[in-house]
Amino acid sequence: MVESYYQAFEAYRQQHPFDGQPSALYNPVNYIMELGGKRLRPILALMGYELFNPNYEAALPLAYAIEIFHNFSLVHDDIMDAAPLRRGKETVHTKWNLNTAILSGDVMLIYAYDYLLLLDAPDRMTDILKVFNRLAREVCEGQQMDMDFETRSDVSIPEYLHMIELKTSVLIAGALEMAGLAAGASAEDVRHLYEFGRNIGLAFQLQDDILDTYGEAAAVGKQIGGDIVQNKKTYLILKAQELASDPDRSTLATLMSTPTIDPKSKINAVKALLDKMNIRQQAQDTKTQYQNDAFAHLSALSIPAANRIALESLAHALLDRIS
Amino acid sequence: MVESYYQAFEAYRQQHPFDGQPSALYNPVNYIMELGGKRLRPILALMGYELFNPNYEAALPLAYAIEIFHNFSLVHDDIMDAAPLRRGKETVHTKWNLNTAILSGDVMLIYAYDYLLLLDAPDRMTDILKVFNRLAREVCEGQQMDMDFETRSDVSIPEYLHMIELKTSVLIAGALEMAGLAAGASAEDVRHLYEFGRNIGLAFQLQDDILDTYGEAAAVGKQIGGDIVQNKKTYLILKAQELASDPDRSTLATLMSTPTIDPKSKINAVKALLDKMNIRQQAQDTKTQYQNDAFAHLSALSIPAANRIALESLAHALLDRIS
Repeated sequence: MVESYYQAFEAYRQQHPFDGQPSALYNPVNYIMELGGKRLRPILALMGYELFNPNYEAALPLAYAIEIFHNFSLVHDDIMDAAPLRRGKETVHTKWNLNTAILSGDVMLIYAYDYLLLLDAPDRMTDILKVFNRLAREVCEGQQMDMDFETRSDVSIPEYLHMIELKTSVLIAGALEMAGLAAGASAEDVRHLYEFGRNIGLAFQLQDDILDTYGEAAAVGKQIGGDIVQNKKTYLILKAQELASDPDRSTLATLMSTPTIDPKSKINAVKALLDKMNIRQQAQDTKTQYQNDAFAHLSALSIPAANRIALESLAHALLDRIS
Repeated sequence: MVESYYQAFEAYRQQHPFDGQPSALYNPVNYIMELGGKRLRPILALMGYELFNPNYEAALPLAYAIEIFHNFSLVHDDIMDAAPLRRGKETVHTKWNLNTAILSGDVMLIYAYDYLLLLDAPDRMTDILKVFNRLAREVCEGQQMDMDFETRSDVSIPEYLHMIELKTSVLIAGALEMAGLAAGASAEDVRHLYEFGRNIGLAFQLQDDILDTYGEAAAVGKQIGGDIVQNKKTYLILKAQELASDPDRSTLATLMSTPTIDPKSKINAVKALLDKMNIRQQAQDTKTQYQNDAFAHLSALSIPAANRIALESLAHALLDRIS
């Protein structure tokens, strides 16, 4: 089912390569756009559109704009995070250089607007552009908060949740919101679509935090414990800091603020502290709460229940990676 | 006369500071926007608008969008050029850091679209956004061409002119084009406005090239000969390479491809070659040609001649720095 949206998106993408000049500017754009990925955001946009308008192909320019924006943010974030790899391949600034990664990213952001303008929704275009501007700004704000947090020792859980909402959720939520707008959905339905996406995004990020510490390497597809090794202040760590006794909090703070010498023993020491406070279950409960909120908003849409099934299945597939 | 547009723009800018959160993202935006400058592009937008609609204040959001975009490009270009100073003050990546300069630049580009959408021109909004997208893309393409040229020894004069057109002229031209569109000018007048700006931009850049080698340091406000010291392939150098005898071309190529040890003697040696071929006059003639084309397009506008005077005076003030 999801496969058909994926294929429609990929076909559209391949029909719209970046073939401008100079090629030094556009080759990296084609490279990152062809690196693959689940195409989650564009698929959600197509599915969200189809809830209110059967001709989902009409939303392909929107889906493409969203995926271009997402990849723009990856190119620039990878510079900021000094990441050498993305999806197992060299990042743009590694394969080319810093300047190319900055400028190719910039032109991608501009192209996202170009494709938005190709959407045939004259009455709703201004609203769609305003939503896009808002979420694009929020993604930048989330990235800045994430960087600010690296040097702060007093990040609260509400602040963390706000950061991941901006950095991760608003683009998923906005993809659905813009799709609803473009398809002519009512203000109330557009709001439910947005809230469905926002909560799915938050649940998804919490799942990410949990899997990074408690997942199976083979299933997750990456080294387990990476967040701990990199001293990342995830939900798990922040929750443990909130609940810990004074001595445990101090031990945890020391562990999570010094460079990692022996990864394995550090991961075990941190996990022992997390387990003592039952953090995994608490993170799981918070995730479940967001997930329930998401499905409540999906159920509240003024459409026949049968039409929700595809989106419900996709959300379950995304969020049921922990049993 | 120009002063009133400048003041209207500055008042609007001060009423619309970047006061979002996190402040680490927005402080650099306010910093670069407050560094000053001539505000040439927004002033041109206001004057262009007023040619067709007396209420030029209505174009302030457009003027602001253009100036925000211009400053976004400065923040990112300064990273790429590793420039420590801008208008005598530290550049954003120097005062803060690379990551901040990338991300604050990104959010500026998004805000430019926000202000464009504030323009009250519902029938023309899509056209205005398409012009903005086109010029924004072209500015990126021009910057990439400029970087590509650094490592090439076979840059032709048409290529150089195309590069400066993209990097410098299209934003000036586009500011006037969007102003004309927003003010309700006819397609023909919009085209003349664009061509006026495009030719002014080209003449302006050629003047810049000439002044860098032949200006008076006090009048130009910077060290003379900087382009030669940095081996920049300006119009002067490219024209000399075109006209030189084989031995002179080879001497020039050697001079302009080796690191500068003694700036003064290098500048003198290059100038001696340029003078031998009368390059200053030829650059001046090319500049005059663009300037004449610009004024021809200004004269072709379907407005009373008296209404053109202010824009004509401004263009002369910009372009008559060489006698």
